[in-house]
Amino acid sequence: MSTPVSPLAPKSFPDMPVVPGVAISTAEAGIKYKGRTDVVVMTFAEGTEVAGVFTRSRCASAPVDLCRQNLPHGRARVLVVNSGNANAFTGKKGSAATQMTVEAAASAADCAPSDVFLASTGVIGEPLAADRFTGLLQGMVRTAAPDRWRDAGKAIMTTDTYPKYSTRTVSLGGTEVVISGIAKGAGMIAPDMATMLSFVATDAPIGAGALQSMLSRAVGSTFNAITVDSDTSTSDTLLLFATGAAGTRGAPRITDPADGRLHGFHVALHEVMHDLALQVVRDGEGARKLVEVRITGAESDASARRIALSVANSPLVKTAVAGEDANWGRVVMAIGKAGEPADRDSIAIWFGDIRVASEGERDPEYSEQQTSAYMKNNEIVIHADVGVGSGRATIWTCDLTKEYVAINGDYRS
Amino acid sequence: MSTPVSPLAPKSFPDMPVVPGVAISTAEAGIKYKGRTDVVVMTFAEGTEVAGVFTRSRCASAPVDLCRQNLPHGRARVLVVNSGNANAFTGKKGSAATQMTVEAAASAADCAPSDVFLASTGVIGEPLAADRFTGLLQGMVRTAAPDRWRDAGKAIMTTDTYPKYSTRTVSLGGTEVVISGIAKGAGMIAPDMATMLSFVATDAPIGAGALQSMLSRAVGSTFNAITVDSDTSTSDTLLLFATGAAGTRGAPRITDPADGRLHGFHVALHEVMHDLALQVVRDGEGARKLVEVRITGAESDASARRIALSVANSPLVKTAVAGEDANWGRVVMAIGKAGEPADRDSIAIWFGDIRVASEGERDPEYSEQQTSAYMKNNEIVIHADVGVGSGRATIWTCDLTKEYVAINGDYRS
Repeated sequence: MSTPVSPLAPKSFPDMPVVPGVAISTAEAGIKYKGRTDVVVMTFAEGTEVAGVFTRSRCASAPVDLCRQNLPHGRARVLVVNSGNANAFTGKKGSAATQMTVEAAASAADCAPSDVFLASTGVIGEPLAADRFTGLLQGMVRTAAPDRWRDAGKAIMTTDTYPKYSTRTVSLGGTEVVISGIAKGAGMIAPDMATMLSFVATDAPIGAGALQSMLSRAVGSTFNAITVDSDTSTSDTLLLFATGAAGTRGAPRITDPADGRLHGFHVALHEVMHDLALQVVRDGEGARKLVEVRITGAESDASARRIALSVANSPLVKTAVAGEDANWGRVVMAIGKAGEPADRDSIAIWFGDIRVASEGERDPEYSEQQTSAYMKNNEIVIHADVGVGSGRATIWTCDLTKEYVAINGDYRS
Repeated sequence: MSTPVSPLAPKSFPDMPVVPGVAISTAEAGIKYKGRTDVVVMTFAEGTEVAGVFTRSRCASAPVDLCRQNLPHGRARVLVVNSGNANAFTGKKGSAATQMTVEAAASAADCAPSDVFLASTGVIGEPLAADRFTGLLQGMVRTAAPDRWRDAGKAIMTTDTYPKYSTRTVSLGGTEVVISGIAKGAGMIAPDMATMLSFVATDAPIGAGALQSMLSRAVGSTFNAITVDSDTSTSDTLLLFATGAAGTRGAPRITDPADGRLHGFHVALHEVMHDLALQVVRDGEGARKLVEVRITGAESDASARRIALSVANSPLVKTAVAGEDANWGRVVMAIGKAGEPADRDSIAIWFGDIRVASEGERDPEYSEQQTSAYMKNNEIVIHADVGVGSGRATIWTCDLTKEYVAINGDYRS
């Protein structure tokens, strides 16, 4: 399948600096794709701590089971990721495949099985032939090098039309540390989870508990605030590794999530995660427009979030955006169907800066022509105030086009 | 817009017998459409009782407000329906339009304002110019005739590609009574409500309380068990009128919903509602396939229903069906995302009679060829047993095609 690159793709990719303590290797195992890399190994310095967030699917994949099992140890030495097969709904064969991979990876990286993390993405329900890559792991670990983030981003792609990178440098107690991450995802993207696959690493010496606290807080307004198609994957995995290598340059080791010195780091981590999450939406299958849905005036932030998701997941709102139709009546419908408190006769709606509705009816100043012109933009902001309180939330999504139907009707992804 | 008739349309329309006590009239008011009828008046004999179910939208339309206000009286003499404008999210102008219509209809039918019922369907947010048809009501009531069910079904259509009729004759205490109904709906169809518009009438002499009890029970497995696009309309209205005219032929008057003589009637009413609801799904925008989603083995019937809706509303399941792809991995995904109790390692899935998965993995006998052949059918049954209990539910939906996107991206419906 050769899909053209999304028109919403970033204009350029960032330079991805080395993260001290992380080395990367990729390989072609031929799991499903031909003529491209489909396996990534990341190795981590001794003492690396780890945090993670996973899908809330009741049918989580075998690698998600494995990560959940190893996460409480809080330590990581090696990550193995494959694309082309999700190893999900594969029963005993699935856990046998993860077990075989863990053993090969632990042996290659000379670490305990509990230091191994796995992720798989691709088709659901087909047994994963892990032996296609377990034999490669020894060599991959041996030849891993720090400057291969670009390669890693490409090897984890499935229906993505571009690789997704983000990086920030931030001061931690006076020492510069780096945070770098990659992500993949284009379809089967919905919040209430981490999303698809994303791996972020830092050389900051931060303890696993503090990492987990920051990751769990940041996920709500980043990966958990996007939706392409309301469909939640079996494989969503977000892992954050902290090698601690900056400690040798003077960065303080921090284990208390409330430590004030983490503030800048937390902000930078949020930026990286937000950047990657938005790149996932921008690569939404068939997407031509990025849509930001802002709800204010709700009873609570949680209620605002449910209303925002109702709007962002509405096929009728998404097809109207695809058709560049300023059909704000469908926004009313989607607010109404959310079932959350909303005062119909106080609702106001804006498309960009244009107020299209106020006090429960069409705005007296409404101009179809002006609003239609706004809908031609690549990035659309839909804001609704539901008039009952001060709760607010923002969700990012994309439009629903014929290409989404073509991609998912024609391709066993 | 001239959409071809859905390939899932019934091969023929039933003969619609007269319902004694009901007279019907249609007219062209030019509310939005040109060259077609867009207003229906139904008049009911003195003493007609009424029951109703309405949208649960928080942004219900002005006519829904009016019906809710009049329903407790339990009596109806006249129904006025227009297509082309939903009179929803129209603020004070909206209630002024319903008030004007009620006064004109009450005067034309010589009844109390509380005996008037209204429904509107079409675009949301545009003020309804009720004066386009209020002047017609006097003449429409005067010329109304019993044999015009066919005309009524056509006048209420919006994006429907065919009118929807159903009728049954059943014995009530030894006297034959008739139940006839019409419906409209193609998009903005999701359960947890009545659906779009449906009007059913009978000559049975049944009291409003008993009518309401039967209607509310039957709606769960009929209109509330269908979804085209998960989007709930602001205007959903289902009304059931009982003229009592069969009383003169000896049918007993029944007011107790537990009266055993209602059994046959209740079954027939359920059949009419089920028939109309399925016709709505068969006319789902862009639909080429009817999909029945059966969930068994859930913790409760309510839980099974939530899982079935998760499968039926999944864009990835619906596009796979459109592509005739037996992608049962997406059914696993949709079960998983429902968040309801399910034992991943016990789940079994059937497409038609073909078991594609069992005990949490691909069925050992799975044949891609056989399953792909099944997917070419017009009607697809997806059955999943989630392995935790005895709860069950069935939901009907349709596939998601490029035509759905075209219809809703190109047309202000």
